[in-house]
Amino acid sequence: RINSDRLWDSIMEMAKIGPGIAGGNNRQTVTDEDGEGRHLFKRWCEAAGLEMGLDEMGTMFARREGTDPSLPPVYVGSHLDTQPTGGKYDGVLGVLGGLEVVRSLNDLGIKTRHPIVVTNWTNEEGARFAPAMMASGVFAGVLDQADVYQHVDKDGKKFGEELERIGWKGTEKVGDRKIHAFFELHIEQGPILEDEGIDIGVVTHGQGLKWLQVTLTGKEAHTGSTPMPKRRNAGLGMARVIELVHEIAMDYQPDAVGAVGHMQAYPNSRNIIAGRTVFTIDIRSPEKEVLDAMDGRIREGIDTICDALDIKYEIEQVGHFDPVTFDKNCVKAVRDAADRLGYSHRNIVSGAGHDACWINRVAPTAMVMCPCVDGLSHNEAEEITREWAGAGADVLFHAVVETAGI
Amino acid sequence: RINSDRLWDSIMEMAKIGPGIAGGNNRQTVTDEDGEGRHLFKRWCEAAGLEMGLDEMGTMFARREGTDPSLPPVYVGSHLDTQPTGGKYDGVLGVLGGLEVVRSLNDLGIKTRHPIVVTNWTNEEGARFAPAMMASGVFAGVLDQADVYQHVDKDGKKFGEELERIGWKGTEKVGDRKIHAFFELHIEQGPILEDEGIDIGVVTHGQGLKWLQVTLTGKEAHTGSTPMPKRRNAGLGMARVIELVHEIAMDYQPDAVGAVGHMQAYPNSRNIIAGRTVFTIDIRSPEKEVLDAMDGRIREGIDTICDALDIKYEIEQVGHFDPVTFDKNCVKAVRDAADRLGYSHRNIVSGAGHDACWINRVAPTAMVMCPCVDGLSHNEAEEITREWAGAGADVLFHAVVETAGI
Ligand SMILES: NC(=O)NCCC(=O)O
Ligand SMILES: NC(=O)NCCC(=O)O
Repeated sequence: RINSDRLWDSIMEMAKIGPGIAGGNNRQTVTDEDGEGRHLFKRWCEAAGLEMGLDEMGTMFARREGTDPSLPPVYVGSHLDTQPTGGKYDGVLGVLGGLEVVRSLNDLGIKTRHPIVVTNWTNEEGARFAPAMMASGVFAGVLDQADVYQHVDKDGKKFGEELERIGWKGTEKVGDRKIHAFFELHIEQGPILEDEGIDIGVVTHGQGLKWLQVTLTGKEAHTGSTPMPKRRNAGLGMARVIELVHEIAMDYQPDAVGAVGHMQAYPNSRNIIAGRTVFTIDIRSPEKEVLDAMDGRIREGIDTICDALDIKYEIEQVGHFDPVTFDKNCVKAVRDAADRLGYSHRNIVSGAGHDACWINRVAPTAMVMCPCVDGLSHNEAEEITREWAGAGADVLFHAVVETAGI
Repeated sequence: RINSDRLWDSIMEMAKIGPGIAGGNNRQTVTDEDGEGRHLFKRWCEAAGLEMGLDEMGTMFARREGTDPSLPPVYVGSHLDTQPTGGKYDGVLGVLGGLEVVRSLNDLGIKTRHPIVVTNWTNEEGARFAPAMMASGVFAGVLDQADVYQHVDKDGKKFGEELERIGWKGTEKVGDRKIHAFFELHIEQGPILEDEGIDIGVVTHGQGLKWLQVTLTGKEAHTGSTPMPKRRNAGLGMARVIELVHEIAMDYQPDAVGAVGHMQAYPNSRNIIAGRTVFTIDIRSPEKEVLDAMDGRIREGIDTICDALDIKYEIEQVGHFDPVTFDKNCVKAVRDAADRLGYSHRNIVSGAGHDACWINRVAPTAMVMCPCVDGLSHNEAEEITREWAGAGADVLFHAVVETAGI
């Protein structure tokens, strides 16, 4: 078993970097705080005898040599970046859980046949720069590196330039690694495990996602002196689309979810009818057909809404991944580990996207989930217990060691 | 008649200060640009032989002496501040129209019995700091000076501190002036005059207004992994309230209007269900009963919406004025002037709020309106013709001189 106190202490230490305003974290990707978190992780890796690699997307690869260095490594990790109002565990648990795996191997003096590489994928959250899981997406060859370098945040800063500015742009070509298997430990971010009192989620599938960024263009005009029939109200259009997305998601739930979390009105003045609104629709389903059907209905609905309001629209897909089926053998390794350790477990579908979803396209992959309080995530109040974290890391340890061989 | 070329040139000169991004202006109240605009206006006033007064709200009072200095002055003016994406004429026409009145009197060597004071009221727009018509509201005793000094903009800066910072906080006590009459020239900001091909709007009434700032509090949560029934979505709540306001306004139009132009979601991330939204409802009607009925229905509707979504709400009234009936004699002076000059005219109700609406409570007041292209205002593309401006200023000139006496 791993050392759950050491794991917990490391999580708490990391949480001191980029503190939020309500007990969580604001350590968004390629900010100064992200840089500071990376330095701490690097120091810990070096202290554990690992050798650090860094690729052109800023992804960190901390390698523990295997007894047969010619074998492709088993990868284990997640991400250290957070939402602007994120929790202390989303991502961090998976990276420091991976570190705890090698620390425990060191303690026990165990050498694995395959090398083990602990990974911190850059920009998993997609909060500052769309899309989410950016570096793992480039690694898997689904996203284009030159393209995502140009993606801008709300202030117009470019991802590539910010990565360089914080000093974490490496020289290693992205995707040039052979991966024997990849394991990611993550909090569930949903309520199922806690509700059912189960220790471990064996993640068999991941939901697919689409992010549709919508721009509505009406006409700025005075809220007081413009007659109602003369208005071309982009704010009202946005409101109707938000309701539309909700209604469509309700039609398909529990096999789908949908919401708009990002929304901006221009010029955003109390007495100006919004001339332009920009917002992002987030729809998800484990069924590709459902996701496509929702996408179709949303596009049709936007067309109808805009027609009625005499406003124009543009829709840009700024994020997308198909539903994922994880690797049978890796999933079995996770389930067997939970069994061996005596933890209660169940199969589960990941509601969120994860780096594992992309890496699954290029290497055998699986995920371990542990419960989180009230299913709450993407909230500074996100919480887990030391025991849940420890159980998750125990299962991760066994699955990784089993796969890496002794 | 006034010199319409000089008036036009002055408007264009003022428009160079705080240029917008699309041909209009961004010269929001108590910004550096506002300060620069004030300096230019002050230089022009001094060149015209006027003496400048400045009160504690930053309102500028440029006085041309009368033949009987003991008589209370006739006031004429409007505001130089703009929306963040404002036009070149909203407010500016009224201030520089007032200046043109005294410049023309100087040209003609005419002395009036009552002094004339050209006025630039601070923060008419209410874009940066609610409410609108702030300084005239304090002057009329409706708003509290100490209170509005504390009002903050989006960056948390206080109105009083910003006024001091730009160097335009005067020492004169606010409201300590006796006003014989007040006249304000303004663009219509609506389509009626242009549609009917009429030169002059004789403003008999002004719509009443309420600004209700609403804060909805739900729960930040992950857009992917939070089941639909578990969501407490403050973004969806805002969308429903925006639709509600529109529906209620449609029920009462053309005797009412309503919209939400200011809206903000927190934390505004693509994959976080909004935990909080803040937005301002703007409703208006020339009938107090209608305004009150709308207010009641909106509050009821918000309660129902929030109940269904399990979210909390707070409603704060951040702006309010009752419908206005302008002074009979002043209105007659405007109508007579238009008749005398041979301009076509009609009675009109102001859809927007104006400093004249507040001053009407403490002194006989009326307004002159001229058409604007397509009824468009609070838009950088706001446009008028030199002839429309000239006709409006001509009528203003005659109404002011008639009232000030020769
Ligand atoms: N796990 C997680 O929160 N990932 C962010 C991408 C997503 O929105 O699913
Ligand atoms: N005239 C004008 O646009 N005033 C601003 C206050 C309002 O919203 O009516």
